[in-house]
Amino acid sequence: MTHRFDPDAHLLDLATVSRERMEVLLGRAEHYARGGTAPQALEGVAVCTLFFEPSTRTRLSFQLAAQRLGAHVLGFDVSTSSASKGETDLDTLRTLEAMGVRGFVVRHGREGAVRELAGRAGPRSALINAGDGRNAHPTQGLLDMLTLRQAKGTDLSGLKVLVVGDVRHSRVARSDLQGLRTLGVADIRVCAPPALLPGPEVLEGCQVVPVLDHALEGVDVVMLLRLQRERMEEGTVESLDAYHHAYGLDARRLALAAPGAVVMHPGPVNRGVEVTDEVADGPQSLILRQVANGVAVRMAVLEALLGGPQPPHGLA
Amino acid sequence: MTHRFDPDAHLLDLATVSRERMEVLLGRAEHYARGGTAPQALEGVAVCTLFFEPSTRTRLSFQLAAQRLGAHVLGFDVSTSSASKGETDLDTLRTLEAMGVRGFVVRHGREGAVRELAGRAGPRSALINAGDGRNAHPTQGLLDMLTLRQAKGTDLSGLKVLVVGDVRHSRVARSDLQGLRTLGVADIRVCAPPALLPGPEVLEGCQVVPVLDHALEGVDVVMLLRLQRERMEEGTVESLDAYHHAYGLDARRLALAAPGAVVMHPGPVNRGVEVTDEVADGPQSLILRQVANGVAVRMAVLEALLGGPQPPHGLA
Amino acid sequence: MTHRFDPDAHLLDLATVSRERMEVLLGRAEHYARGGTAPQALEGVAVCTLFFEPSTRTRLSFQLAAQRLGAHVLGFDVSTSSASKGETDLDTLRTLEAMGVRGFVVRHGREGAVRELAGRAGPRSALINAGDGRNAHPTQGLLDMLTLRQAKGTDLSGLKVLVVGDVRHSRVARSDLQGLRTLGVADIRVCAPPALLPGPEVLEGCQVVPVLDHALEGVDVVMLLRLQRERMEEGTVESLDAYHHAYGLDARRLALAAPGAVVMHPGPVNRGVEVTDEVADGPQSLILRQVANGVAVRMAVLEALLGGPQPPHGLA
Repeated sequence: MTHRFDPDAHLLDLATVSRERMEVLLGRAEHYARGGTAPQALEGVAVCTLFFEPSTRTRLSFQLAAQRLGAHVLGFDVSTSSASKGETDLDTLRTLEAMGVRGFVVRHGREGAVRELAGRAGPRSALINAGDGRNAHPTQGLLDMLTLRQAKGTDLSGLKVLVVGDVRHSRVARSDLQGLRTLGVADIRVCAPPALLPGPEVLEGCQVVPVLDHALEGVDVVMLLRLQRERMEEGTVESLDAYHHAYGLDARRLALAAPGAVVMHPGPVNRGVEVTDEVADGPQSLILRQVANGVAVRMAVLEALLGGPQPPHGLA
Repeated sequence: MTHRFDPDAHLLDLATVSRERMEVLLGRAEHYARGGTAPQALEGVAVCTLFFEPSTRTRLSFQLAAQRLGAHVLGFDVSTSSASKGETDLDTLRTLEAMGVRGFVVRHGREGAVRELAGRAGPRSALINAGDGRNAHPTQGLLDMLTLRQAKGTDLSGLKVLVVGDVRHSRVARSDLQGLRTLGVADIRVCAPPALLPGPEVLEGCQVVPVLDHALEGVDVVMLLRLQRERMEEGTVESLDAYHHAYGLDARRLALAAPGAVVMHPGPVNRGVEVTDEVADGPQSLILRQVANGVAVRMAVLEALLGGPQPPHGLA
Repeated sequence: MTHRFDPDAHLLDLATVSRERMEVLLGRAEHYARGGTAPQALEGVAVCTLFFEPSTRTRLSFQLAAQRLGAHVLGFDVSTSSASKGETDLDTLRTLEAMGVRGFVVRHGREGAVRELAGRAGPRSALINAGDGRNAHPTQGLLDMLTLRQAKGTDLSGLKVLVVGDVRHSRVARSDLQGLRTLGVADIRVCAPPALLPGPEVLEGCQVVPVLDHALEGVDVVMLLRLQRERMEEGTVESLDAYHHAYGLDARRLALAAPGAVVMHPGPVNRGVEVTDEVADGPQSLILRQVANGVAVRMAVLEALLGGPQPPHGLA
């Protein structure tokens, strides 16, 4: 299933993005975040959001990014349409490629599925992983890095960063940890219920601190993760109240962090679970800034992968 | 829940629209209804149809209006997507605002919900109420006023207008009655089954005439309301046949109205219930003209609220 | 139900398309297939995909074609939305017409439904049949003719063409057979399980060859049809395996055809049923070329029906 392909033609995972490439993308994203425009950058380019698993927020963010660059945007929601009729994922991709679509924003429920598709995609295609199972969500990682740079300056190496919550099942956490490591952050702490800690390969270079009050001491950044309801259903987490009691961020706890510490969350927020209203809506929260940066980062990624001189779009 | 905000930044209800503002909107809508174009009026502006309750017709009308002005249009159908994941309505709005969306066309099942959202929206946002429960549907009211002016001239004060049907549950009726009062219509009659009459605050300045044949005498305009099937289910209306017998408009009854009387209906029409085919498709029917005017009115409203010099859309 | 209308204002069926009109459309489609662009051909024109039966692939192909011509594109998925609320198909069409939509890409589950709608459409409207029951799918027929011309030259009259599969229930087969006859193909063979053969009016000018190995002898083109799962459910076909054994195209069988024979399939392919992976992905397969040509043909059709000087889009 693994095929040779140019990994820089796609954005599949932050693990394979060099620091240099990441800095270039973040620099361009910052340009867009400050209001830069490029309404014809992707003129005539067709981009499809190909979602094997539904997600309105991520889809809309990519759609708006592509529209702002002048692309034609198609939406293919495989999960809710009866559309695929038993077609393989690869045939779906190849059909869209044959129609002339060049950019694919792909979300999939299975780890590695987007990389597999990219390995078999045509030479003119660019795939962007918009989340594959618990594996990766690289544009979320990038937008979090952009948000951190805006708040704390471009040199992140001296920061103390704490990730709280269900790291085990979180593609956001994996991509954030990759981004932090690539940008040289040395002090990364993880706090999670034991059943929600991931394997050691995910935690490379991280320090696990079981008690949130201890973990928070002196940190500059608290990255909260969303708690999926299915954790309750499967019994991994006893109750929302119990989770909030042990791992929820409130004002008292936030005061344990460094002065000026910032709070991040990928959304949607379960208010009263991962975080109180007071903190989510407070001056240290960067949650809406993250959303804004999402569009900017996606513009930068789409432009980097699909901009420039167009290949002829007639029959090859 | 009530917050201070500039009501003229939004369109929530015709009750708060002055006659002068209404005349300006209708004048601009008339320009669009005659084929006027402004393909770049909203260039670079993002508009989202945010529907907490589904409605394809209204959504498409707004979508086309926004496209004709050059906006980027996003659709967020909260009711059918699993997208909100327990997120509050306000967080959904704020997330879209953070993405850079400035125009929100909001439909909601609960009275007052759109006004509440508007009260907490950001300073660059414009909310347009596309129907909230039984409260208001202001663009429908405006398009009906535009349709009346085209048919009967700009001075409506001497008209005799009859509203027939389920006024109690109708946001269309409430907005039409507001519009008629604002434009100085003095003779407004209402005819409905007793169980479908609203409270006196809705009927301010109206005369209730229980028998349709009497109510129709000499009127210049008959505004029919859609009968929702749930009225049958809950037993408020005995049967479609009985309703049609007592409140359905047919050619015989229409002859009781003034010569040249016009017939309106917000659609979709239950043929054979509120109105016969002969009348709905006849020369006195303005039903399709209303639909056409819907796009024109929505262009005027979107332009009024979102046009002009753009605020910087970078991070504030 | 039948009304007078200009059949050339629509594309309903290849049976009513003259050879000359077909050649013009194919010539223009070839221009687009080679990378020709016309990004403003339909500027300001609104096109709606009006699907009473769902089909994501066809919808996306038309949507992309319309976008590449600069149209405003709306999507109305009647089948999955609760939108129509008991409205008749004709009222839905007239409502969209009143909004200013001029191009209608209509899919319907019932034979003749699109023609009926076209017979009652307004004078500025163009309807394109995107599949009506088992009756017709004319853009599929055209794209298949374009694909054949690219592969075999513009004079198709000397070709031997074999159609394999469920001709009885296939609108694709009906439109392909019409196209082949119109372009002068004399040797058309059909191979199908007896229960899946259509009536004689469909097979006009065709030779039925029951055994696939015999039917394949010396043919230049094999057009495979998709086998719908419901054929199994209703018992018309015993099993997928049995079907594949008797009617599936594999490399051994393809070798019975003429050297350089080409293989076509309208998609989505049931791999291992109508065709093996080896043949579907092999050098003689034109399956993805068909998909690419679909966008080009739809651009040509939309442009032919909707391009040129615009009628005024104000109120008539």
